[in-house]
Amino acid sequence: MRQSQLFTKTRKEAPKDEVSVNAQLLIRAGFVDKLMAGTYSFLPLGLRVFKKIENIIRQEMEALGASEILMPTLQPKENWEVTGRWTQLDNLFRFASYYSKIDYALGATHEEIVVPLMKKFVFSYKDLPTATFQIQNKFRDEKRAKSGILRGREFFMKDLYSFHTNEKELDEYYEKAAKAYEKVFQRTGVGEQTYFTYASGGTFSKYSHEFQTVSEAGEDLIHICDKCRVAINEEIITDLENKCPQCGSTKLRKEKAVETGNIFKLMTKYSKPFELKFKDQEGSEKEVIMGCYGIGLNRLMGVAVELFHDERGIIWPASIAPFLVHLINLGQDEQAEKLYADLTAAGIEVLLDDREVSAGEKFADSDLIGIPYRVVVSKKSLEAGGVELKKRSEQANEIIAIKDLISLLKK
Amino acid sequence: MRQSQLFTKTRKEAPKDEVSVNAQLLIRAGFVDKLMAGTYSFLPLGLRVFKKIENIIRQEMEALGASEILMPTLQPKENWEVTGRWTQLDNLFRFASYYSKIDYALGATHEEIVVPLMKKFVFSYKDLPTATFQIQNKFRDEKRAKSGILRGREFFMKDLYSFHTNEKELDEYYEKAAKAYEKVFQRTGVGEQTYFTYASGGTFSKYSHEFQTVSEAGEDLIHICDKCRVAINEEIITDLENKCPQCGSTKLRKEKAVETGNIFKLMTKYSKPFELKFKDQEGSEKEVIMGCYGIGLNRLMGVAVELFHDERGIIWPASIAPFLVHLINLGQDEQAEKLYADLTAAGIEVLLDDREVSAGEKFADSDLIGIPYRVVVSKKSLEAGGVELKKRSEQANEIIAIKDLISLLKK
Repeated sequence: MRQSQLFTKTRKEAPKDEVSVNAQLLIRAGFVDKLMAGTYSFLPLGLRVFKKIENIIRQEMEALGASEILMPTLQPKENWEVTGRWTQLDNLFRFASYYSKIDYALGATHEEIVVPLMKKFVFSYKDLPTATFQIQNKFRDEKRAKSGILRGREFFMKDLYSFHTNEKELDEYYEKAAKAYEKVFQRTGVGEQTYFTYASGGTFSKYSHEFQTVSEAGEDLIHICDKCRVAINEEIITDLENKCPQCGSTKLRKEKAVETGNIFKLMTKYSKPFELKFKDQEGSEKEVIMGCYGIGLNRLMGVAVELFHDERGIIWPASIAPFLVHLINLGQDEQAEKLYADLTAAGIEVLLDDREVSAGEKFADSDLIGIPYRVVVSKKSLEAGGVELKKRSEQANEIIAIKDLISLLKK
Repeated sequence: MRQSQLFTKTRKEAPKDEVSVNAQLLIRAGFVDKLMAGTYSFLPLGLRVFKKIENIIRQEMEALGASEILMPTLQPKENWEVTGRWTQLDNLFRFASYYSKIDYALGATHEEIVVPLMKKFVFSYKDLPTATFQIQNKFRDEKRAKSGILRGREFFMKDLYSFHTNEKELDEYYEKAAKAYEKVFQRTGVGEQTYFTYASGGTFSKYSHEFQTVSEAGEDLIHICDKCRVAINEEIITDLENKCPQCGSTKLRKEKAVETGNIFKLMTKYSKPFELKFKDQEGSEKEVIMGCYGIGLNRLMGVAVELFHDERGIIWPASIAPFLVHLINLGQDEQAEKLYADLTAAGIEVLLDDREVSAGEKFADSDLIGIPYRVVVSKKSLEAGGVELKKRSEQANEIIAIKDLISLLKK
C-alpha cells in the first residue's frame, strides 16, 4: 500500500480524555479513532491488524473442528427471559422498537441465541459432539470505559460453543480448546506474557479458567506460579489458601493482568432452561452438556500495544503487524518503486512511504506506526551498496544488497 | 467439508410465519435460521455464501482505490442531532444507557460517523479525493419485515463514501463506482437481471441512481428501456413523462424489482452540517463534496435465491455457491475419500456427503442445497467407467472418468 493513499495521518496528540496507553498510541498512529468513550472505529491500518488476529483465531477454531456462523446482534427479550438474564445481566443494553413494541437486547453474549438454534438441529447422540463459533461485535453497557480498546461498550469477540453427550467428552474438548487458545496467544505474539489462570467457577464447576496477559494496564490481579506456568485469579486465592492448585507451592508472584480469553464448563446451565436435549443410545432423553470459550479481539490488539511499545511508538509482533515492511523512499523514486513492486510480487506486505515530507517526519511516523522492518532507500544507502534495513525492535541497522533483501525478509 | 460434520440439517418445512421464497428455501436448506421477524443467523453454508459475496464486493471497492474501515454500531445521539436525523429518520433505533444516561442510536447508515471522522484527516485539497468503505451489519426499525432476508431489521451493507474538491471530480468517481457496481452484479451472477435505474434525487441532484434486480419478490416497480438497458423507478416515471431519460423512448416494460444497490451524489448535504472543509489551492476554505454508495449483502444473497431456484431447491451461481462440487458417496468409501482428497488438493471446494442415509435423501438434499456440480460415486458409476456428473441447473448427467474430472471442473 502507498502511504500517500492512506487517508489517515499520524497525530501529535491523542484526545485529552484518552488515558490508556493502547488507545493513545493507536489513535496517534492512525489505527483507530475514538467515536466516544468505549467506542472506536478501526481505520485502514487498524483493520489490517484486526483481520490478522481474526484469521489466526479462525484457523485455530477450525482446527478444533468447529464451524463458523454469524448470529444476530438484535435479540428478542423472550430469549433472555428464559434464562433470567434479561434482568440479571447489569450491562445488557435493552430497548424497545418504536413500531412494533418488540423489546430487544443487544448481543452481549450469545448463549441465549445459540442454544435455541442448536435445539433445531440436535436430537440424538449421533448429532453430538458438535461445536460452532462466531467472530462478531458485542455490546455491554459498562459503567466505566477508560481502558481504551481493552474494555469497550462495543467490542469484538470470538465466541465458541461446544455441545456434548457427557462430561468426559466435554472435559476432553475443553482441554483441546485450552491448547488451541495457547496457540492463538503464541501466534499473535503475546504467548510469553499470557497465563492459563484458575478463576471462580460459578454454579457447575469448581473453577473456570481464564487466559490472563500480564500488563500494567490490566484490571485484574493474578498470582503466578512460575514453576507450573499457571496463575490464580485474586478472586479465589484465599479459597486456595495462597497455593498453586497444581503443585501446591506458595511461591507465587502477584501481577496486574488483562483477561484476554476465558473458557467455561457451562454443563447444563443453558441447555436446561431451553430444554436442549438429546436421545442417548438407550433412547432416553438427556440434557446436552455445554462449554463456552471466548477471546476478545480488541483486547488482544490492545494488550499487544501495551506490551510492545517504546517512547517513540508501537512495536508490532510480525504476525499481527499491518505490514511486514515499511519502505521509506528518500528521493530515490525509481529504485523505491521497483523495490515496492518486487517485494509485493514476492508476497511481502509493504507500506511504501511515498509522501513528500521530510526524512525526519518519515522516520518518526515509521517508529510510531511500528511495522517490524524499516527499509530505507536513499542516495546514501545506494552509495553504500543497497538499502538500509532496521528492525523496529532493535537499534542497529545495516546495509543490505537489494538482491538479498527478499530472501532475508522471507526467512 | 464433510456433510457429517455440518451441524445443520435440511428441513422439510420452513417456519409457518415465513412467507418469502428466499427465506423458506434458505431455512429449509440450512443456510440461515430465523431468530425473529427480520433477524436471521447465517449458518455455516450461509456464511460461506455471504463471504463469497463480501469478497467480490471488497475486491471491486479496492479496485476503486477505496480503503476499508469498520465504524461502530453504537453511535452518540449528538452526531445524529447535527444532521437532524435523530428525529427525522423514522426507522432509527434509539435508546439510552442505563448507567451513563448516554443516548445512543444503532447504526442505520454511517454519514453521521464518517464525516466527523474525515474531519480529523482532511484539511487541504492535497488530502482529496479520497474514499473509504466498510462491510457491516446495520439496523432499521422497519414497520414490516416480511420479505425474508431482503428486508431485515438487522442486515449487512457495504457502504462506500467518497470525498472530493469539486463536482466534476465527484461525477467522474460516481461513473467509476457505477461501473464497479455493474461488475459486482455480473460477478455475483445477477447481472443480467439488474438494471441501472433512475430514481428521485433529493435536495442536491436531479436524480439518484439505484441498481434494481428484476424479481417477483421486489417491493419496487421499475420501467425498463430494453434499448438503453436502463430503468426508471415508478416514483419518478410521471416526472419523466413516461420516457426513457437516455433515448426518449416511451417503449418501457414495467417489472417488480428489488433495490440491490444505490448511489447518491450527496454533494455538501453532510459536509455542511459537520463543517467538513478543505483549503483549495488559493487557500480559501470550501466544503467537501461527497458521494455515497451502498450494496445490500443480504439482498444480493436473497435475490439470487429468488432468481435461481426450482421446485426442488436453490440453484446457486458458481461464484457465490457455498461449494463448487457436491460429492455424493453411495457406498464407495474408498473411491469417494480419494476423490475428496484429490479435488480438495486441486483447490476445488467440495462438500462430501458422507452421511449414512439413503441415496434418495442425499439427492433430495443436494437439490435443495443447490451446489452447481453434483458428482456421484456409486457401484453403478464405477462400473460405467467413472463418476456421474450433473449440473444442478440441467437435467442431463454423464459418466466422467475420474482422471478427467479435475480438469473439467477447473474450466
